[in-house]
Amino acid sequence: MVGPFGGTTSAQLLQSAMLHPERLGEPVALTVNFAAPVADGDIRFLARPVRTNRSTQHWIIEAHQAEGVVATATAVFAVRRETWSDVEAVMPGNVPAPDAVPRMPTRGFPAWPQRYDMRFVEGAFPTAFDEQEQTHSRSTLWVRDEPERALDFASLAALSDSFFPRIYIRRRRRAMIGTVSLTTYFHADSALLAQVGTRHVLGVAKALNYRHGYFDQTGELWSPEGQLLASTHQLVYFKD
Amino acid sequence: MVGPFGGTTSAQLLQSAMLHPERLGEPVALTVNFAAPVADGDIRFLARPVRTNRSTQHWIIEAHQAEGVVATATAVFAVRRETWSDVEAVMPGNVPAPDAVPRMPTRGFPAWPQRYDMRFVEGAFPTAFDEQEQTHSRSTLWVRDEPERALDFASLAALSDSFFPRIYIRRRRRAMIGTVSLTTYFHADSALLAQVGTRHVLGVAKALNYRHGYFDQTGELWSPEGQLLASTHQLVYFKD
Repeated sequence: MVGPFGGTTSAQLLQSAMLHPERLGEPVALTVNFAAPVADGDIRFLARPVRTNRSTQHWIIEAHQAEGVVATATAVFAVRRETWSDVEAVMPGNVPAPDAVPRMPTRGFPAWPQRYDMRFVEGAFPTAFDEQEQTHSRSTLWVRDEPERALDFASLAALSDSFFPRIYIRRRRRAMIGTVSLTTYFHADSALLAQVGTRHVLGVAKALNYRHGYFDQTGELWSPEGQLLASTHQLVYFKD
Repeated sequence: MVGPFGGTTSAQLLQSAMLHPERLGEPVALTVNFAAPVADGDIRFLARPVRTNRSTQHWIIEAHQAEGVVATATAVFAVRRETWSDVEAVMPGNVPAPDAVPRMPTRGFPAWPQRYDMRFVEGAFPTAFDEQEQTHSRSTLWVRDEPERALDFASLAALSDSFFPRIYIRRRRRAMIGTVSLTTYFHADSALLAQVGTRHVLGVAKALNYRHGYFDQTGELWSPEGQLLASTHQLVYFKD
């Protein structure tokens, strides 16, 4: 994978707006574009609230390093109200509890998967690149931060990028990949995040289309009680 | 719906990068955030290429009117290469040809649906708000510009916002809505767009989750030959 874990960068970009003194409400949408690999060393986040309305606020956020812009983001924050609510997406059924599913061993993986406790029900990362192409790339897994940490918007933003690139699940062969754009819609507010606490959430991911060097994948993050916490989409560069 | 058709604004934001003298390649990802209703009158687009790499280019784009920023966008452009390609999403089967499906009458609708020829196979816009809540919000339709116009990136960006807000399909009752964020991944390059020409494309849309004033919906736009031209996602404000 090209560059370090995009989830960390996403969380930092979001957090720079979260910590801004003019911030209104909580995040409902975040899009991060990864412009260059983040290098070890200083990084500066520039968060600008470009429009603040009565109940919504729009942000442009940039991450700068010595050589220029390494990531950009836009975010929408909002003050929410109670309304009619319903989950139309379908949470996978008959999923065993996290305790009943073995944790994926992370030895030999990059640093970032070692910071997650992942328990795959379906569509695990291949233990060998045997080039046995699969018919689909769907994964279902329980996932939480390692070490345990109560869920907040920053960790939910990072979790949105914790689904392995679908091309590995699908093709079971090496490829150079790099996420270029990542969008997350936050359905959870802070009260719902507090209910989840440090428990595992259920992740579901699948690819839509691979074509001419780019593919997209979509993911869902569910609370154990069946609330959709976030839906997330990304476009990934690949070289086969 | 709050404000004019977001698809037009999206197309204009994208076009401001398309027409920029420093533009590299073709769009692969576009996210538009709608910060305020676009008013009749002057509008100024400010497109900045914030990072240009060998084969990708990252943009921040703003739309300004007298009272301030009305929309922001980020875009990723890329020079594509031939690679292994595959459509993993499933195009709806057994869909009758566009000629065999009646066009939705647009009398009484706002201006923007009158600029589309929509032929619903499933999940039409309700002819009456009878408050008969449906079990899902899925729509399948043939759609093209009216009058006919060869498909290009601008029209594909606009088409991505042409799916009616899912809450109307689902609840069949009035609600105030406004798209706050719209993301489109372009799988088509200009050669594929040229193959589609002025023909109808097949649109599919569904909602994922409605909660506390916001819902998200996801859509696909397919060529008649079964190529996924674009996948698109949006977060919508609603007041019930």
